[in-house]
Amino acid sequence: MLTWEDVKDPHVVIVGGGFAGLGAARALRAAPARVTLLDRRNHHVFQPLLYQVATAGLSAPEIAAPLRRILRHQANVTVLMGEVVSVDVGRRTLVLSDSEMGYDYLVLATGATHSYFGHDGWAAHAPGLKSIEDALEIRRRLFLAFERAEREDDAGARAAWLTFVVVGGGPTGVELAGTLAEIARHTLTREFRRIDPSRAKVVLLEAADRVLPPYPPVLSQRARRQLEGLGAEVRTGALVTGVDASGVALGSERIAARTVLWAAGVAASPLGRSLGAAVDRAGRVKVERDLSLPGRPEVFVAGDLAAFEQDGRPIPGVAPAAMQMGRHAGANVRRALAGRPRAPFRYVDKGSLATIGRKAAVADFGRVHLWGLPAWLAWLGIHIFFLIGFRNRLFVLLDWAMAYLSYERGARLILFDE
Amino acid sequence: MLTWEDVKDPHVVIVGGGFAGLGAARALRAAPARVTLLDRRNHHVFQPLLYQVATAGLSAPEIAAPLRRILRHQANVTVLMGEVVSVDVGRRTLVLSDSEMGYDYLVLATGATHSYFGHDGWAAHAPGLKSIEDALEIRRRLFLAFERAEREDDAGARAAWLTFVVVGGGPTGVELAGTLAEIARHTLTREFRRIDPSRAKVVLLEAADRVLPPYPPVLSQRARRQLEGLGAEVRTGALVTGVDASGVALGSERIAARTVLWAAGVAASPLGRSLGAAVDRAGRVKVERDLSLPGRPEVFVAGDLAAFEQDGRPIPGVAPAAMQMGRHAGANVRRALAGRPRAPFRYVDKGSLATIGRKAAVADFGRVHLWGLPAWLAWLGIHIFFLIGFRNRLFVLLDWAMAYLSYERGARLILFDE
Repeated sequence: MLTWEDVKDPHVVIVGGGFAGLGAARALRAAPARVTLLDRRNHHVFQPLLYQVATAGLSAPEIAAPLRRILRHQANVTVLMGEVVSVDVGRRTLVLSDSEMGYDYLVLATGATHSYFGHDGWAAHAPGLKSIEDALEIRRRLFLAFERAEREDDAGARAAWLTFVVVGGGPTGVELAGTLAEIARHTLTREFRRIDPSRAKVVLLEAADRVLPPYPPVLSQRARRQLEGLGAEVRTGALVTGVDASGVALGSERIAARTVLWAAGVAASPLGRSLGAAVDRAGRVKVERDLSLPGRPEVFVAGDLAAFEQDGRPIPGVAPAAMQMGRHAGANVRRALAGRPRAPFRYVDKGSLATIGRKAAVADFGRVHLWGLPAWLAWLGIHIFFLIGFRNRLFVLLDWAMAYLSYERGARLILFDE
Repeated sequence: MLTWEDVKDPHVVIVGGGFAGLGAARALRAAPARVTLLDRRNHHVFQPLLYQVATAGLSAPEIAAPLRRILRHQANVTVLMGEVVSVDVGRRTLVLSDSEMGYDYLVLATGATHSYFGHDGWAAHAPGLKSIEDALEIRRRLFLAFERAEREDDAGARAAWLTFVVVGGGPTGVELAGTLAEIARHTLTREFRRIDPSRAKVVLLEAADRVLPPYPPVLSQRARRQLEGLGAEVRTGALVTGVDASGVALGSERIAARTVLWAAGVAASPLGRSLGAAVDRAGRVKVERDLSLPGRPEVFVAGDLAAFEQDGRPIPGVAPAAMQMGRHAGANVRRALAGRPRAPFRYVDKGSLATIGRKAAVADFGRVHLWGLPAWLAWLGIHIFFLIGFRNRLFVLLDWAMAYLSYERGARLILFDE
């Protein structure tokens, strides 16, 4: 059997199997290189739908697919599961938790995680949403809270179990708050005997003066109204100063809540700092116009880990930007392999969508702004279209159709680590 | 709001939301009683398909449904999530981990778990399959083993990662071994670059002289041949004397295997012993003909926790028996509430089915024995029919149809506790 070590082509290593990493791998299809894709997990996650797993609307396998399955027909790619600890750019070597691996070209696309702005103690009380594991942990807490409330005799304690605080009014926070309000009002109807789930309080806290700050103000306003229509309470200009097991502090005010979800800060993967190059405040690596590391033309950074400004503004940490950067980094590796000049990256913004709940969403397509049902339909269509794998598309479509008809959410399991 | 505590009807408590507990709850529909169903989990699990979750053919939510969802239209039932620690039959009180609860009638249906025959140290190295959590742990180990093999340079170590031992040749063991062989031969084709998954070794160990011991010998023979046809190695008369991280010992022989699954012993829930009544060797509670506890007519035991002999033989620990016992216990509570005499339980054996893999199964319908495709089709139809919830039936049907066409298994996620 011929193994990849026997091939003498240049070795391109891609670290990270998210949108950027997969984009790079695909751009290197049939390239004269042996490509290794390294990831800590065995699966690609369709991050825009993670909140659906967290709220039991979809099951985890519906939004994830094994990386080696996705890339099985691309014969020059080897997928390996492993954890990269640091990059030694001088030796062109990756340090893994259990070994080392050399490269001729590197595409680093390890993305971002949540940041608690230096308050790491908050993490235990306010989980964020970046991985499937995170989503399952949030699902567990949400549905366990209703169970605890049903068994609680003390009215104050019961109210705290029935108060859900979402910190951060970006797209993820808006999605979580809207869906949670819907679950309380509609999904759990008739299931409880001692509590009334529709009295659950869902509070969305945003430090800025409006939700969805990157969107045009008119859409922020629409999003807020739709959230309030679903029964969520929206508080802007609300700066969280403390989070513990019993709730959230806003200066001298306290909100008693047993469930707090974190959708506020973003911090780039710590791997970026090991490159020894300049990073911005969130830890993102500043890259050249071709996405390579300054002074290291064989190293590319793509996706949420890269800091790239265009027309004076950083490009946003969204899936389409990551895909485009990944593909571009892969194409530039290809150009370098062929001895051709590299191309500068240019982000093409095709618009932004954020969903809020049933028939509630906002969409910003530049001059066209949509909200309500039209935005929601656009959101549904685009998300089905970009899901990887026919099976996932079919199952998500069916799950959404059934949820639309019945308000039922099919994945309401409370699982425990044992 | 009128809560269940205000109602003065007799209080019937059902412990356990498996087939027996749900059967009892349904038999008490519209009975003049307030019924409390207590379970440690929030969901009912369709246990006959657990092995499909363990082998990534189905996602967990496809074979589980929230108990309160199932029972939401039954107004006299309150579902509570809680852990019962012991039963104080003298005080007619359940001791929970955090409180106590009185009852007028009790249906105890907490089922069984796996037993390592006194070798509890084996549990860490050879997980069993009783809960969704167990299934996800097995799934993690199976697919992680192939990942580790792909990264392993040493041939011996690689072979140990590619050796899968299933201990126990009952229905669960046969299902796991057959499916594993199929995954190695078909599902993972073309996905790996350094290993050949089809060389993975799947070994089924059974201490008796044939697999599926409760079945007629001819079907045991058929099952063995079908397993071997799928590529599994079947060893009967194989008594496991040791299990550790590096493999399994059979007397002086060792099988080097990094993945060992346990499908051998069954032990009844420890709650049975707290009743203070006679139990059999597996900890099952010996019950009267009406399924009540000797000397305690207000306490019933149903499902895998009950030891019940019929025609000189214990009735088997299978889903149909649990359903029938649960329904019967509920009906007897109803009779007692109405002051009518109780009826003796009689198990109606409608036959047994065990699946092995694609188009491979055995079925024992008394005088009719089936194997191969006909048995497999019977197995498929019956399992779809008995799944709870339209959504689950639809999704499982679709998943199976797609798996049949493509050999793909949709839930191959390796998840970690973090």
